[in-house]
Amino acid sequence: MKLIRFGLPGQEKPGVVTAAGMFDVSAFGEDFGEQFFENNGLARLSEWYAAHAGECPQVPADTRLGSPILRPSKIICIGLNYADHARETNAAIPAEPIVFFKSTSALVGPNDDLVIPRNSVKTDWEVELAVVIGKKASYVEEKDALDYVAGYCLHNDYSERAFQIERGGQWVKGKSCDTFAPLGPWLATKEEIADVNNLRLWLTVNGQKMQDGNTSNFIFNVPFVVAYLSQFMTLLPGDVISTGTPAGVGLGMNPQVYLKAGDVIELGIDGLGTSKQTAVAYK
Amino acid sequence: MKLIRFGLPGQEKPGVVTAAGMFDVSAFGEDFGEQFFENNGLARLSEWYAAHAGECPQVPADTRLGSPILRPSKIICIGLNYADHARETNAAIPAEPIVFFKSTSALVGPNDDLVIPRNSVKTDWEVELAVVIGKKASYVEEKDALDYVAGYCLHNDYSERAFQIERGGQWVKGKSCDTFAPLGPWLATKEEIADVNNLRLWLTVNGQKMQDGNTSNFIFNVPFVVAYLSQFMTLLPGDVISTGTPAGVGLGMNPQVYLKAGDVIELGIDGLGTSKQTAVAYK
Repeated sequence: MKLIRFGLPGQEKPGVVTAAGMFDVSAFGEDFGEQFFENNGLARLSEWYAAHAGECPQVPADTRLGSPILRPSKIICIGLNYADHARETNAAIPAEPIVFFKSTSALVGPNDDLVIPRNSVKTDWEVELAVVIGKKASYVEEKDALDYVAGYCLHNDYSERAFQIERGGQWVKGKSCDTFAPLGPWLATKEEIADVNNLRLWLTVNGQKMQDGNTSNFIFNVPFVVAYLSQFMTLLPGDVISTGTPAGVGLGMNPQVYLKAGDVIELGIDGLGTSKQTAVAYK
Repeated sequence: MKLIRFGLPGQEKPGVVTAAGMFDVSAFGEDFGEQFFENNGLARLSEWYAAHAGECPQVPADTRLGSPILRPSKIICIGLNYADHARETNAAIPAEPIVFFKSTSALVGPNDDLVIPRNSVKTDWEVELAVVIGKKASYVEEKDALDYVAGYCLHNDYSERAFQIERGGQWVKGKSCDTFAPLGPWLATKEEIADVNNLRLWLTVNGQKMQDGNTSNFIFNVPFVVAYLSQFMTLLPGDVISTGTPAGVGLGMNPQVYLKAGDVIELGIDGLGTSKQTAVAYK
């Protein structure tokens, strides 16, 4: 299944994507949040949809999409998880995953505007594969880790490099601005993706290819990361883990390149669709 | 007003504390979460309670307390916000606030057990003043910052120092284990606290005084911190900001001292009550 949430910001309804288009499943009666995943919602929705597909209204193709999941308890990010990105930022290859959080208030729809924060001069892009947790995970073993995964999304882990690196310790300051986490277009459930550790991902700015990588180059792959994080904190259903970005960010260029109002950022991952953000100034 | 939540974990009901004891206000019909604060809940509850106090059942004094607020969207922590604590950990006095997140899944009641995580050898304590946000705050000015504050709580920002410092970048790994955020006993609303930047705070382990400080020694005081954070992210109603710890943590001792099963940790802040945790091994 591919899950979406569509409609105006804060009023999104749940839907699904099939070969025939987007369909409204709000008659199922649940939104895609912690309770849904926790209570076996994916299996229940799949069964319900098989019986009720014919009654689900089609959603016009130009409808705004929101994040495909409700605001999660946390967005956990892995830093420097591709060797080429570590090299371009002059960072050492990490011996174990680097972990930081992104504020969940940064979450927006896949094609919403990117608002460049006030006083920002170094807003940068990062195409990433995001993992959505399907059930509560604490001290999980790597061999079992995928049992705790609901599915996957496309994510742009926007980052303000001055806030992140030049404003004193800890990266969260540069990762948490409003609109810095466009997620989607859809959540692809686990069985839709044959091998999550072998997906091409790419990003362009104003049509110019900036990032073109493959999750086969992960330093720490998805099962390892899920198991690893679960040693330090309980992962809750609906939580998001963003798995890091390949080379090609603005910080890594010589000279460095950062986003300005009017720039158009497009990105995609095999099987997870594409998204497109337009950068606008903070008003 | 002083707000509490009481009852079994996950089944807490809202209450208030007065000179006469603890009283059940579940008849008010709202729990103390984002919606409550966002929709002027403090003023509405105060008015409701004035009219209905006589009908509110007393809560027995030995009833378990939960966190005085529902799980917030984020727990933001300020690092090294007391000069004496920066010195004891051999850290420089920060030029601007050091910011990190703590997973909200770490939140527990004030007197719940502290579970020492699996493979932990350096679990440490940190008595802290926590600020609870009362309304949505983005790009707030310091002079207006207290308008966005609902009130204050006692918090123990438990920290696993090996996870935090020795496991590769970023502190969140050592701050987010389950039970690492006992909050309460109560939320004291803003008007209960005459000067939040002049409160004594202390912590003992097995009866021995370890920390004894005063928020007058903040490097960055409460209005500054609220305004500062709001430049980097939107603070939502019910969000928690933990403002840092004074000297006297286990990491700062020579030799270092860490918690073991059976240790009893007690802490308090003027006007915000006391809490007591017993350390237990992970089972």
